[in-house]
Amino acid sequence: MSKPAPQVLARVREPIQHALRAAVGGIEDDRMRLIASYQLGWCDRDGNLVRYSGGKGLRPTLVVVSAQAGGGTLDDGLAGAVAVELVHNFSLLHDDVMDRDLERHHRPTGWAVFGEGQAILAGNAMLIRALEVLAGDGERGGRALPAMLAATQRLISGQSDDLHFEGATEISVADVLHMEAGKTAALLACSASIGALAANASAHIVAALSEYGHELGMAFQLVDDILGITGDPAVTGKSASSDVRAGKRSAPVVAALNAGTDASRRLADLLAGGAPSSDEDVVLATKLIEEAGGIDWAAREADAHLSRALDQLEALPAPQHVVADLAAVARYVVDRDH
Amino acid sequence: MSKPAPQVLARVREPIQHALRAAVGGIEDDRMRLIASYQLGWCDRDGNLVRYSGGKGLRPTLVVVSAQAGGGTLDDGLAGAVAVELVHNFSLLHDDVMDRDLERHHRPTGWAVFGEGQAILAGNAMLIRALEVLAGDGERGGRALPAMLAATQRLISGQSDDLHFEGATEISVADVLHMEAGKTAALLACSASIGALAANASAHIVAALSEYGHELGMAFQLVDDILGITGDPAVTGKSASSDVRAGKRSAPVVAALNAGTDASRRLADLLAGGAPSSDEDVVLATKLIEEAGGIDWAAREADAHLSRALDQLEALPAPQHVVADLAAVARYVVDRDH
Repeated sequence: MSKPAPQVLARVREPIQHALRAAVGGIEDDRMRLIASYQLGWCDRDGNLVRYSGGKGLRPTLVVVSAQAGGGTLDDGLAGAVAVELVHNFSLLHDDVMDRDLERHHRPTGWAVFGEGQAILAGNAMLIRALEVLAGDGERGGRALPAMLAATQRLISGQSDDLHFEGATEISVADVLHMEAGKTAALLACSASIGALAANASAHIVAALSEYGHELGMAFQLVDDILGITGDPAVTGKSASSDVRAGKRSAPVVAALNAGTDASRRLADLLAGGAPSSDEDVVLATKLIEEAGGIDWAAREADAHLSRALDQLEALPAPQHVVADLAAVARYVVDRDH
Repeated sequence: MSKPAPQVLARVREPIQHALRAAVGGIEDDRMRLIASYQLGWCDRDGNLVRYSGGKGLRPTLVVVSAQAGGGTLDDGLAGAVAVELVHNFSLLHDDVMDRDLERHHRPTGWAVFGEGQAILAGNAMLIRALEVLAGDGERGGRALPAMLAATQRLISGQSDDLHFEGATEISVADVLHMEAGKTAALLACSASIGALAANASAHIVAALSEYGHELGMAFQLVDDILGITGDPAVTGKSASSDVRAGKRSAPVVAALNAGTDASRRLADLLAGGAPSSDEDVVLATKLIEEAGGIDWAAREADAHLSRALDQLEALPAPQHVVADLAAVARYVVDRDH
């Protein structure tokens, strides 16, 4: 059903993991370093090494490819790659606390293991470490840092909107897409361009890569939204219909609510009190979101964003294999099943 | 009973508040900016302006005086002053969530008003804004940024230890002093020295100011600990014996527990289950901490740290009025009643 992961993810994985481990090793506090290592899928709650169970490494991969697209080398993007992966995991640790999510990547979430307070603090420690890595990367880091900070600010803003929307009525599709632009696309736009910034690429190359990352990010989040409603728990590592259960107003849900169909009205009644109150209601809500066309709409939108991401690569004055890597990542984002 | 606030606080207040308001105005997200403004004591929960009800501004004052002590001007310290105040408030917003504190400066805490998630996010937004301000301050900011990041990392580590100690047994006085060095003294050491760093002062001046700030910070926290046990709620803006009620293992509590007196043993029994379970037990625990000598010990330690802070000013090659300001701030920290 889903495409295999693009080869570039595996190809750049080792140097990125090496740099990431060195960065996390630089977190002086033992407890913060342990939680960071757990969050990154390297160890269990006691610090024993485990078979890697973290994410796919999309963001750091984009950074090192972005450095190459901007005329630099993989090395030029390594500090940025580490920084975006740490910032991403800072946001995951915090979001899981706020959303009360219990599982991620088939494991208990950080707060479920270490407690809320320690998970919040470890997120903070990872955020600061990210910025230390950039601040320690000389002129390259100095060029990348403002973009990293701006993206993090938008990430925070998107999560704030997301929380605000929970259980709210009268959210428009435009509202939720604006939220998702902040929550997800901002960090992917940053990932796809700070490598080029670090490599001192020209402004129009940085802008095209940032736009590519934004479109890819929108597609990514829409696919994530679909998986949060219809995804197979065994593959996604989350509980079934996890977003529906949590009462999340993700884009497909809002599109379904605003579709004006009979299913839309029944869905609105069901979600009027916030999250569905029973397992049966979760199943019914999931069915109504599909019936009202929310899933189909999101899939079409994701495809449209993918097209626009690929469009940005057309005129990019970069080596063909670099452009091919970026295109492969974008296609994978839309075709994945987890 | 307590000394009036040193004049320097009032003297530098306006330029600092001006810069701080400009910085917070630069937080684009409306909700994050509102919570930041509420946290800083500028407005109520709806954004209506109120009579200022925030903190004393010790940290930003130290930064601008530190810039002068390092041969620069007040302006050289403004970005750093804004940054430390924002980082301080980031930590307050987060700590109040973790400690479930309901009041600060006679007002409901951020999470009590805006909810846990939004308060955590607003803390993050203030942290990122702090770093944006430094990153936007050219070479001055570039020199100050690594020190700011390192101090924030230690601040996080100290809060993590503090949470870890809650309800724990067998904590030594050394453990708790190490925790307080991170939780409080690190940011004050940073405040007292990054102005000088920004002003490009020599390393030994920066080191002396940092050491002064560390000693002042230790004194500050010990006095805070005393006020958290014996302080007048009407003056401190916190509930009576708030730290005792929360089961906090602050330095005076740990000193009392380790004093080997009869009161120490009774206190240990009372706190064995974590926090005291009734108002009567809170009153009794407070009495036992005093009887076991915890309060007297902390007061003596605070005085010793004050002496060492003042010692660092002896050989400082700075104008006499600047040294006098630093000395006045240090003395005030130990003599305050809130």
